[in-house]
Amino acid sequence: MYTETFDQMKKQLGQLDKWLGAAADHARSRNFDADLFAASRLAPDQFALARQVLICCDTVNAAASFLTGIAADPQPEPGQTLEALQGRVRETIGLLDRFSPGDFAGAATAVVSQPRWKGEWMTGADYFVQHALPNFFFHLTTAYAILRHNGVGLGKRDFLGPQTKHPPKQ
Amino acid sequence: MYTETFDQMKKQLGQLDKWLGAAADHARSRNFDADLFAASRLAPDQFALARQVLICCDTVNAAASFLTGIAADPQPEPGQTLEALQGRVRETIGLLDRFSPGDFAGAATAVVSQPRWKGEWMTGADYFVQHALPNFFFHLTTAYAILRHNGVGLGKRDFLGPQTKHPPKQ
Repeated sequence: MYTETFDQMKKQLGQLDKWLGAAADHARSRNFDADLFAASRLAPDQFALARQVLICCDTVNAAASFLTGIAADPQPEPGQTLEALQGRVRETIGLLDRFSPGDFAGAATAVVSQPRWKGEWMTGADYFVQHALPNFFFHLTTAYAILRHNGVGLGKRDFLGPQTKHPPKQ
Repeated sequence: MYTETFDQMKKQLGQLDKWLGAAADHARSRNFDADLFAASRLAPDQFALARQVLICCDTVNAAASFLTGIAADPQPEPGQTLEALQGRVRETIGLLDRFSPGDFAGAATAVVSQPRWKGEWMTGADYFVQHALPNFFFHLTTAYAILRHNGVGLGKRDFLGPQTKHPPKQ
């Protein structure tokens, strides 16, 4: 299920790209600077939109690297404009496109660690389900919530995107 | 991975229970009615906290039922108090506790449909990853964001909960 879930994360990044586009349209229609959204936040001690978007991208990019053992390309810090953020989102989708299902064959038993963990480690399965998955959706939904709170016209369908439904069985 | 992901959703419901408890503590320390949180929202045309919590519970409960074929127990509408919402969250954790890994054996190929889909259907695998998973995290994170926006002292660790880390390898 790693491949299916990464595909879903990639799809969600595509939706995020559209929300940022909707925010730019909204700003244009109301005659304000769209890039003000990048610094918007829901609480003074919470990351602003730009950081929420970057952490979405970093989380899925790092997880793909940890679980496949394929080094992640370094991504330079983008500017604080909606356009730069959309660029990072699209770049991340492109990075994920390079992985094939076979790359995740050893994902569940991969050993995942980070320098700040001081030698402690998690299995790939635990890291994915306990950290990468909830962390990704946390920052994704917070990005959506910041836009929603600031008047951008988005709804649940924009969050979920299209669903693979089949026609009625005869 | 269905079992691991449902376990994670169950864990997240446990975290949600704690956020609601932290909201009650915050209200007590500031001398306001904690149940005002239940009607708080981030945008006028968005569901308030109470509905966000209920949809979290309903999403995971319905998904477990669709994927296992085991009928979900009907859950009566709870009151609009933090305590009633915590009750529903705990009740949902209890419902999920009844499922065992074997119950999800046919999950990927289950046929999932709802009356409003007019005969259209999704495979269990698609339904889970395209609908249940993002919908659950959407409403969970929105509940968190409503509390955070209204001053409750929560952070990312409260969102994620404890992580299964192993001691350094010798």
